[in-house]
Amino acid sequence: MAVKITTRAENYSQWYIDIILQAKLADYSPVKGSMVIRPRGFAIWEKMKSVLDSMFKETGHSNAYFPLLIPESFIKKEAEHIKGFAPELAVVTHGGGEKLEEPLVIRPTSETIIWAMYKKWIQSYRDLPLLINQWANIVRWEKRTRLFLRTTEFLWQEGHTAHASKAEAQEETLRMLFVYQNFAESFMAMPVLTGEKTESEKFAGAVKTYSIEAMMQDRRALQAGTSHNLGQNFAKAFDVTYQTQNGERDHVWATSWGVSTRLVGALIMAHSDDRGLIIPPKLAPIKAVIIPIFNNQNKSRVLSYAKVLFERIKTSYSTEIDDDEQNKPGWKFAEWELQGVPVRIEIGPRDMENDQVVLARRDTGKKITIPAKDLEETLGNLLEEIQNNLYHRALLLRKKNTYQIKEYAEFKEIFDGPGGFIESAWCGNPECEAKIKEETKATIRVLPLGRDELKNHNCIYCGSTADKIAVFSKAY
Amino acid sequence: MAVKITTRAENYSQWYIDIILQAKLADYSPVKGSMVIRPRGFAIWEKMKSVLDSMFKETGHSNAYFPLLIPESFIKKEAEHIKGFAPELAVVTHGGGEKLEEPLVIRPTSETIIWAMYKKWIQSYRDLPLLINQWANIVRWEKRTRLFLRTTEFLWQEGHTAHASKAEAQEETLRMLFVYQNFAESFMAMPVLTGEKTESEKFAGAVKTYSIEAMMQDRRALQAGTSHNLGQNFAKAFDVTYQTQNGERDHVWATSWGVSTRLVGALIMAHSDDRGLIIPPKLAPIKAVIIPIFNNQNKSRVLSYAKVLFERIKTSYSTEIDDDEQNKPGWKFAEWELQGVPVRIEIGPRDMENDQVVLARRDTGKKITIPAKDLEETLGNLLEEIQNNLYHRALLLRKKNTYQIKEYAEFKEIFDGPGGFIESAWCGNPECEAKIKEETKATIRVLPLGRDELKNHNCIYCGSTADKIAVFSKAY
Repeated sequence: MAVKITTRAENYSQWYIDIILQAKLADYSPVKGSMVIRPRGFAIWEKMKSVLDSMFKETGHSNAYFPLLIPESFIKKEAEHIKGFAPELAVVTHGGGEKLEEPLVIRPTSETIIWAMYKKWIQSYRDLPLLINQWANIVRWEKRTRLFLRTTEFLWQEGHTAHASKAEAQEETLRMLFVYQNFAESFMAMPVLTGEKTESEKFAGAVKTYSIEAMMQDRRALQAGTSHNLGQNFAKAFDVTYQTQNGERDHVWATSWGVSTRLVGALIMAHSDDRGLIIPPKLAPIKAVIIPIFNNQNKSRVLSYAKVLFERIKTSYSTEIDDDEQNKPGWKFAEWELQGVPVRIEIGPRDMENDQVVLARRDTGKKITIPAKDLEETLGNLLEEIQNNLYHRALLLRKKNTYQIKEYAEFKEIFDGPGGFIESAWCGNPECEAKIKEETKATIRVLPLGRDELKNHNCIYCGSTADKIAVFSKAY
Repeated sequence: MAVKITTRAENYSQWYIDIILQAKLADYSPVKGSMVIRPRGFAIWEKMKSVLDSMFKETGHSNAYFPLLIPESFIKKEAEHIKGFAPELAVVTHGGGEKLEEPLVIRPTSETIIWAMYKKWIQSYRDLPLLINQWANIVRWEKRTRLFLRTTEFLWQEGHTAHASKAEAQEETLRMLFVYQNFAESFMAMPVLTGEKTESEKFAGAVKTYSIEAMMQDRRALQAGTSHNLGQNFAKAFDVTYQTQNGERDHVWATSWGVSTRLVGALIMAHSDDRGLIIPPKLAPIKAVIIPIFNNQNKSRVLSYAKVLFERIKTSYSTEIDDDEQNKPGWKFAEWELQGVPVRIEIGPRDMENDQVVLARRDTGKKITIPAKDLEETLGNLLEEIQNNLYHRALLLRKKNTYQIKEYAEFKEIFDGPGGFIESAWCGNPECEAKIKEETKATIRVLPLGRDELKNHNCIYCGSTADKIAVFSKAY
């Protein structure tokens, strides 16, 4: 076995990189900070896209495409927006051999170019709501990059909606947050917290930012998707008004929301083990692999038996058969485990004689032997079981590593030690938040939804009265 | 009816733009030369993508993603390549607030960045063939742009394959050309010529370029897709060698091939009429629209009758129902015709009483009345008929406007007059080709495949012996 993966215990960061490179999910490119997404990694992103795209369409959104290049002056129209994005811009100064009159920036997000168009398209309440999504590439000049998690260029989707009222915009913001939660939990098998971001962590230009946050296996948080209520900020910056039903004019209300190829990184970190990638069945491009085990005497019989089973299941379960004759079964087992295929189907001469097959689960490694005639049904159930098991395993990890803490000494101890999610009361003062970050490296991931009922608490840092519960964690 | 479309007879170019803007397929953006693809236009591109993507996967290709930004030095490695693309480059000189050490160009095509990666990935014959496709955005600084047909930024797919032999690369080049032909003819209902490009028209860096060429309704040619045999040019520029089965080292053989959002423009121009867009049913995002016709007395009965039919067919045929109460039926008819929906289903009170519906075809305008119980079957047949009719209508147009010409005087007369495709013998001399272009504005679109058998001809321009048949036309 040529493959070498650093163990999680040894070096969690290196383990993550090893899996990506060895399983050929992505590669470093010659362009600093940019990655190449290789076919096996891209196949996972394609699966994600396809599920999310259906969810967006079911909630009434249409896809469109806006320009990559944005005039520099547009980016500057919303004051908070430019403050947030200025340090990350890539700037095109020359085109067609000539210096441009006005530099163009490569989109770091598309609010500004989209709202310039919405000004043309929105006149009356009959044009609202306008519910558009875009799948696109984004460039943000990042100093420290990490494959999938933070790259100068990444792929994402960005929803941009316009509404006739504040309430509708808020409803949409939460609707899409819950779409993301549903996707993360039901498809990625990754439990997430949902909640509001603090002032210091919200999107540049938003009134409110909500996010979904997952716990990785090293007990750090990963922000996996965000949904922003933009209020009338962009409508005002681009002067987008509409005629109301009573014939008045008002500025439009907006939201934006996005997830990116970062989700592929989250998926890897959430489930994989020291033998390689683990992909939840619902997002696995290949759900099962058949590995015939043969020698020179029985080769043709075992292979043809295996191929009959392969033909039987391949359309329902997107299966591969590994009938390569140069590599030994042990090598193949390791290789397909590395790639994260949820179920391995072993078929040897004895199995053939007994009309049975062996199924090995990628998540637990457990093997079962079943009659070949039951293959479809058992495989279907097993895939479902693996999907559920991965979710519950991740949920258990989070539960075990989530603490309700009232004393700052204890709080610090946890972040000096094992880390995790800490739920504590917070007074709402950004200074307390900043001090905590400085002293522990933990940030407020979310003010979790539906937890405002807690009263009579004291801020974990300053001890003054606190009406908010915050979830703190070190984060990616 | 608020919509105004210039007729084709009046001004063909303006007719094309009117359809795009009025049917809301696309819009001009504030960035010179870049367009916004609006939801209705993007839905057509999504349909195209989905069909093509399946075709690529069926022929063994996988999708991947390579960086948008390419170091300037890479683009310069293949001498012909840089000569062709230098005038069209957009250049990023600043990132993250600092001047870059080496400028980055926005990909005008991805051969160079991809072959830099192939050097890492290809070691032995066991790594070949490598069959990768990418869906991406491209920037080429264009002086004169036209919505969909030629824009500074466009969306496309680019296949990039690596092979162990010259023959395999040539086979792949033609395989993908025929995939494009099949797509154009079977899905876009657009007949195309296939053939090789002359030296002067081939891709910068290719050994051979093949294309598919369609005739638009103004009898001009539109190049709708290209497939290139790159020989060992890029393998040599990026030093990509592999170990052959006999243990020797050889440079790898390559192809690349692409189609773009230009296809949406081709689709519009090929089929639409003076009332608006016509979309072939197989690519129509909405295949049928139900328009209930009612007054205040019968409104609720007609609507509920129409909705029953709508529920019956909507999943099989992606149907919409237009039950808006503000617009009159005539207005709706015009609006949905403008949008190119293949079949309109009218349901009035009398139809309801007789349990019948009226189907109106978008391509011919013909109406038929049928029993409501036959709706699914008739609609299915009708959509197929429309698809076929559009193809044959386009084929007939091409046939009527294709000429075999032996005299240059006659040749010139045609291009001074109605235009079309002219098949003439050509000696192969680029000077004759250039002179013809200068004098008639017609270029050689292709040297059509399978037509080499013609002998004893004289070049249409210089009269010397010619062993090639060339198809000439003015082109987009």
